[in-house]
Formats: sequence, C-alpha cells, structure tokens
Amino acid sequence: MISLSVDRHSADSLHRQIYDQIRDLILGGRIAPATRLPSSRLLAHDLGVSRNTVLNAYEMLLHEGYTEGRVGAGTRVSKVLPEELLSAKRSPRRAPSAAAPAGKLSRLREVWQTGDRRTESPLRAFRPGLPEIELFPWDVWGRLTGRFWRRPPSNLLTGGELAGYRPLRDAIAAYLSAVRGLDCHAGQVMITAGAQHGLDMIARLIIDPGDGVWLEQPGYSGLRTAFKAAGARPTAVPVDESGIDVAAGRRAAPEAVCAAVTPSHHYPLGVTMSLARRLELLEWAETAGAWIVEDDYDSEYRYGGRPLSALQGLDGGGRVIYVGTFSKVLFPALRLGYVVVPEALIEPFLKLRASVDEHPALAMQPVLAAFFEDGHFAAHVRRMRGLYAERQAALLAALERHAAGLLTATANDAGMHLVAKLGPAFAGDDREAAARAAAIGLRAPALSGYYADGQADQQGLVLGYAGLTATEIDSGVAALVAALK
Amino acid sequence: MISLSVDRHSADSLHRQIYDQIRDLILGGRIAPATRLPSSRLLAHDLGVSRNTVLNAYEMLLHEGYTEGRVGAGTRVSKVLPEELLSAKRSPRRAPSAAAPAGKLSRLREVWQTGDRRTESPLRAFRPGLPEIELFPWDVWGRLTGRFWRRPPSNLLTGGELAGYRPLRDAIAAYLSAVRGLDCHAGQVMITAGAQHGLDMIARLIIDPGDGVWLEQPGYSGLRTAFKAAGARPTAVPVDESGIDVAAGRRAAPEAVCAAVTPSHHYPLGVTMSLARRLELLEWAETAGAWIVEDDYDSEYRYGGRPLSALQGLDGGGRVIYVGTFSKVLFPALRLGYVVVPEALIEPFLKLRASVDEHPALAMQPVLAAFFEDGHFAAHVRRMRGLYAERQAALLAALERHAAGLLTATANDAGMHLVAKLGPAFAGDDREAAARAAAIGLRAPALSGYYADGQADQQGLVLGYAGLTATEIDSGVAALVAALK
Repeated sequence: MISLSVDRHSADSLHRQIYDQIRDLILGGRIAPATRLPSSRLLAHDLGVSRNTVLNAYEMLLHEGYTEGRVGAGTRVSKVLPEELLSAKRSPRRAPSAAAPAGKLSRLREVWQTGDRRTESPLRAFRPGLPEIELFPWDVWGRLTGRFWRRPPSNLLTGGELAGYRPLRDAIAAYLSAVRGLDCHAGQVMITAGAQHGLDMIARLIIDPGDGVWLEQPGYSGLRTAFKAAGARPTAVPVDESGIDVAAGRRAAPEAVCAAVTPSHHYPLGVTMSLARRLELLEWAETAGAWIVEDDYDSEYRYGGRPLSALQGLDGGGRVIYVGTFSKVLFPALRLGYVVVPEALIEPFLKLRASVDEHPALAMQPVLAAFFEDGHFAAHVRRMRGLYAERQAALLAALERHAAGLLTATANDAGMHLVAKLGPAFAGDDREAAARAAAIGLRAPALSGYYADGQADQQGLVLGYAGLTATEIDSGVAALVAALK
Repeated sequence: MISLSVDRHSADSLHRQIYDQIRDLILGGRIAPATRLPSSRLLAHDLGVSRNTVLNAYEMLLHEGYTEGRVGAGTRVSKVLPEELLSAKRSPRRAPSAAAPAGKLSRLREVWQTGDRRTESPLRAFRPGLPEIELFPWDVWGRLTGRFWRRPPSNLLTGGELAGYRPLRDAIAAYLSAVRGLDCHAGQVMITAGAQHGLDMIARLIIDPGDGVWLEQPGYSGLRTAFKAAGARPTAVPVDESGIDVAAGRRAAPEAVCAAVTPSHHYPLGVTMSLARRLELLEWAETAGAWIVEDDYDSEYRYGGRPLSALQGLDGGGRVIYVGTFSKVLFPALRLGYVVVPEALIEPFLKLRASVDEHPALAMQPVLAAFFEDGHFAAHVRRMRGLYAERQAALLAALERHAAGLLTATANDAGMHLVAKLGPAFAGDDREAAARAAAIGLRAPALSGYYADGQADQQGLVLGYAGLTATEIDSGVAALVAALK
C-alpha cells in the first residue's frame, strides 16, 4: 500500500526515517485521511527492521496528531489533520531578513563578548586554562554518574535549593576552609554554572548604572564584560609586582563601589598579591564601603612558594565575595563553579538567583559531591599539580630551545599558563604575533588584548600549557617560532 | 603515637573523619612539624578500616599542605606549615554583621523574586507545573546517562557551542517544527537552563531601561520579573476569552518594544488565544516594530480541541522569540529549556550568552538528545497526556464532591492546572484562602497574586493536578475544603 525504504548508513535513526516518510506522504495527500496504516509487524517485516523501530515511528506520528488509534490496535491517518499547522506550513513565507532585526536591541550589545565558538583546531596549543582531560578519572566519574542517575531520590527531582545541592556546598565549604583559608560555611556557598555566571550575577547584585569599579590592568575580559553589562564604569588600575596598585586606584576612583581582583595568581601576569597589598586593599574597601570580588580562578595549581590564604579569609567585615570554578580543574564542559558571599548577601543573592534561572540544575552536582566525598578531587588535583609543573618546565625548555631572542618567559610558582615576552627579534606588535599564530591554528592571545584600552606597556603572548603533552608543547613552540620568523 | 577513632554511623565518610582528626592534631600543635605519621597499613589495622580509606585521608592532607612526602614512602607533618593560613585562622574575627551589608546593593533588588526555597511539604498538592516523576522512565534515563558519561568524546569536554549541544538542538528543531508548527532550524535553537533563564536573557537582549513591554494581566510573575530586572516599564494588558486584548494594549502602550504572551494556554487562566487575535497581535508588532515573546510553557499537554500552531509559525517577518522548557515535561530538577530566536537575533544572542555564562553545561544535554532520538520523549509525553487528562477529571470530580458552593472549576482542553473560582460560601478573598491552604501544607496560589497590582476581577485558587494521584487529589481537595470552611 505504501512504499517506504530505510537507509542503514543514514545519520538519521531508522524510526526517524520511517516517521519522516509517512509524515511526508500524509502531508502530501498521498495517504488519505482515515486510511489504515499497515500493522507494525507487517511493515517491520517488509523493511527488515525490528518491530520496535516501527512502533517508535508510529508513536511519534500518533503523538503529533498525524494518526489516531491506539498502537497495537491499528493506526489510521487522522480524519481531521491539524489544519492550522498545515496552512501555516503552506503559507507563502516572506524571505527571512537575517540582516535587519525586526525590533530593537539593547544598547548594551556593544558590551557583550564576541561569541567565541570554541571550534577546536587540530592543535589545541596554547589555549589558556585548558586542563588535561585525557588523564581525568572518567571511569570513576562515569561510575558515580551512573550510580546517582539510575535511582535518583524523588525529593531531589521536583525542585532544588536555590543555592544548589547541599552536600556539594558542604564539600566546597570544607575544601575552601581547609585549603584556601576561607572563613565560610555552606550557607554562604552558591553553586553557579561556572565563574562567568558567578561574576555576571555578582555584578547584577551590587551594581547600578554609573557605579565605579576597579578592574586590574591588564585583566580578565570576562570580569570587564560582566561589570559593564550591569552598567558599571570600570577604572583600569595598574598591576605591579605586588598586585593591584591600591594607591593608584584610590587616586583614580576613590568612590568606586567594588574592586575585582585575582590575588592568588594574577590573570594573566601570574603575580601573587603581597600580604601588605592585601591588607591595604581591605583597608580601602573598609573606608570606602566597597565590595571586593576575589576571583580565585586557578588556585589549585601552586608548584612552589608559600600559598597565601585567600583575601576572603583575611577579611573580618564580610566585604569579600569569592569566586571559583571547577571548569579548569576538572573539565571545561562541566560548567560548575561557586560564589562564596558574605552573610549579608545570602538573602539578596538567592532572590536574584530565583529571578535569573530559578536554581542550579541537579545534573552533575551530586556526582561532583561524591567525587569530593570519596577523595577523588584531592587525588586528581595532586596528580595534575605534579604533571602541570613538569609541563611548565617543558614549555620553558621549548622556548629556550626554539625561541631564543624571540620569546622569553620565566618560571611561575602557579597556574596553567605563562606570559612569553616578545623579544626584539620580532618586528611587529603582539597582535600581529597572535594573528600569525592563529593563521596556523595556534591560540596564543596577545598580552595587549588584556588591557582595557589595548595599550600594553609590554608585548607578549599568553601560552597555556596544562592541557598539552611535552611533545605537543615542543612542536607547538617550534611551529609558533616558524610562524613568527 | 596518635589516638584516632572512627564512627561508622557518622554522616561523614571514614576517610574524612581520619583527615579531620589528624588535621586538628596538627593545627593544635599536638603533632609536631616533621613528625612521621604511622604507615597507612598500620593505621588502617588499628582503626579497623581499609588501607584505601587511610590513603585517601593521607592524600587530602598532602594535597592541602599539612604533610609532605610521597604516599607509600612515608608521610611527615610539613616542616613549614602554611603560616598565613594558620594566622588567618587564628586572627580574632569581628562579629559577622549579617544585618547590614558592608557595601551597596543594586536598586533592582526590589524587583527580584522572593526566594522560594522549594522545601517540599509532605503534601505536594497542588503545586502548579509539578509533573508526575514516579512514572518517568528512570531506567532509560539512567542507562542513557551511563552510556554517555562512561566514555564521553574528548572533543565535547574541552568546551562547547555557545548555543548548546548540536544534536539536541537538531532534535528540538525537528520536534517543534513537526508538533508545534514552528518555522525554524537548529541554528535558531538556543539551549537554556529552563524557561526563566531564557526569559531573563531575552529581556537583557532587547530591553533598555524605560522601554515599554506588554504583559498579560493576569500573568506569570517570572516574566514580569525578567523584564523589570532589565529595566522595562511593563504595561498590564487584560486577557479575555480570546487571549490578550490587543486593542487595549494599543491604547495603553502603543510604543511598547515587546509583547510577552502565553498563546497556547494562558497562564494561569487556561485560555487559548484565537487565530484572529494572533493575527491582530502580529499585525500590531509589525506596525510598531516590536518583538513578541511566546512562552509555550506547557504546550505538550493538550487533551482536546484542535491545537493551534505556535505564533512563531504564523509569523513571516521574524518577530517572534519562542520560549520552551523541559522542566514541566520531564522533571523540574533537569533545568533544561530552549529559546528559538529569529535569524537576526542569533548572533546577538550568542554574544550575550558568552557574557552571561559562556555556554550551557554538557551534563544532561547528550542524554536528552538520545532520549529524543530513541523515541522516548514522544512516548513519555503520550503516556503522561493520557494520565493528566484523567487527573484533571479527578480534580473536577473531587471539587464537585467536596467543594460545592466553595470552589468551582470547569474542564480545560490543556495544561497541568485548573483555576478554581471561590464561591460565595467563602467569606474572605483568595489570598486569605491561599494562606489557609498554606497553613495546612497545601500550595494553592491565589489568582489575584497573578495580577500586577494584586487586584483581580475574580477570586480563585490555582490548583496543579498533573503530579498527583487521584487519591492525593481527592484527599487534598477534602483537606483544602476543611481549611476553608
């Protein structure tokens, strides 16, 4: 009666192919209303597919109103097809105007980041912040994921705490207290979809249009975007070898309502803010009635020197909002992070959160909580710390071997990237160098790109090394040098 | 040498208990720097725990700098403890000032939603939008989850498309085209963390402070919150039996930049917008150069009548931004939804997305894609549609049985809730009725709460039924009636 075929090499599933063909026949009038479709058993036999495949296709047709009747008791083409659907489909359509939006757009669109599509080039070198994912314990992660999601407790499925899954917040609070010297409890820990999500919510929480904010110069563009999107007027405050220059900030914008900093390991320069400077910053914030946003983006990886405890732990007055992420420690697609807010911000943050996206998805929260609880997190960080230290050494060695006079870097006590300074052997500026790297598939962002005005006092490239093998590092540097010569 | 104990009934894991005790001994000076800890084998034997448990505790101590040495080759207390950490811990701390924030807060805080903690009461009745989760195919979901996360492809782990996982967007585009009559392709589908997240991003995308917006009166408070948080001036436009009163909107706010509507099934009244009214709304938007936000929050559940295809499919000019969610169809803790944007908004939306939270977490996206692809989505919706129709009938029957003169409702062709009108037998208003219900653990929101000014022209309670068995519905109504009498 009806003639169908299936292609086992198609990207579409078999039931999808069957569904598509019958639907087209119905819409095209080739199968009349009220016609009985062949039994699933018969059609399955004719097509050489399983009966379940046909049943799935029939269920889709039924669900969507193209057929009537109960599966198993005969399926007929609907007597009344969804007419508006058909007429909408058939109505002549104006050409889509991709160029001009039909309505207005927010003026803030100038502020938003350029959409980075993250299309991976064959060479992953030297994307900053990329961790080693091949050595992540996927067996453990898969097991914990399966364990939770095979039988998730009902009470967790019908909603969720605004701040996030409680056992995960417990684990994070304990971890940050022990390892980073934070003074916090789980009630202050807010689960986010990564650091950028946390920064965006913090900016919305505290900023009104026109408010002044100190941002590090150079600094992380995501911080700048978050604050500008909330209407803030950022002031670029220079960073020296002790961290942000508080005196310069006081002179330039004494009335700022917030200072956002990366004290553990400045991004991208790698400087650690001195204890004296930390106390000076806290003192200013106290006097000015300002918040401090502490972005501790890669605190897990310290290879030498003594770790300084977080600003949050030094702060007695509840002025520091602490931001962290798991995307760099575990894997980027995880998109889980946290914000630790002062007591007085718990309630306002939860109200904002309810308005922004209700509450965090359960998804991987229980898995990560178990990963902490069973000791896998600490073990993974320890293994990666040893590995990344070796990889930093490999990058330094490769630069010495291939790039003498062209690129120089010095060892850093922490992190997942280095800044390589451009030597006099390269004629152009660092943007030119980054563009040449990009042309051969290497990601080596120009240091000047981290300056609000694009005016760097030094020219360099930011080179991530954590996610690359020693061989990839060596061949990557060789290729980079060839492109720069 | 050191005296430890473990409690097998503690909520803390064994290795955590061991870690905590050793750390406290070190911090308290009870174990001196450079002291060698007992071998893991010996300590495991003394405590009657597995050696792995002790090794995990030792790894945490090592990771956090309390001990030195390689696991297996002897572990000693660090000679140099992280001093700043210790001093920060010991420093006298000012009393936390939970009452007064240390810095300023955004003026928008008045706009944010009241944090609903979703602490579940023993009776889940009658939470609107709550689906039946006991009959969700957890075996299938668990299997698909395990299948993906045991061996996730590397290229998906180091980043992600800003718009979301492509196979899921393909499935959603195909589903919406077939079932809802949308005119779209996967490139227009943006994965969100649920409907509220989509609405919040749409508002940020198109609104500047002071812009006028039409909102339905009564209507969904989450829509109001999202637009007000972006600085919009909402105009409450009345809803009649044909949907939003476009003529009233034209009179009240002709210059609005957007109208946000629930045409399939008005929230909360349950009205379906007529085709004539749809065309009138599109006509106004065309003339005014305005956007239409179409919130199709429970389109999956239609029990009778003919479904009208979505506004998006009727629109030829790319003016409609379509919003949907899976939280109500699958389970609320999933927090996955989508926005379908016109071609001209793809690029701006992606830039905004990069600024808000980079890109969606991989997490459950591949699982949901497989759930679609294998036909489980259609099958689940079909099963739930039959069930929810029965449950609506059960609610109507229970109201007739127990609540004559007090609460009356009429059958609705769609949805997961009904509005029960308060009869003259109840002396107070609907807020009073909702409060009495809440006092006995029932969630039955007052209809007037859905009005921007709280002034409803009719008094009623919104009663969800989808997630409740017939027995729960009957006893819930009986309890509600007792509370109102």
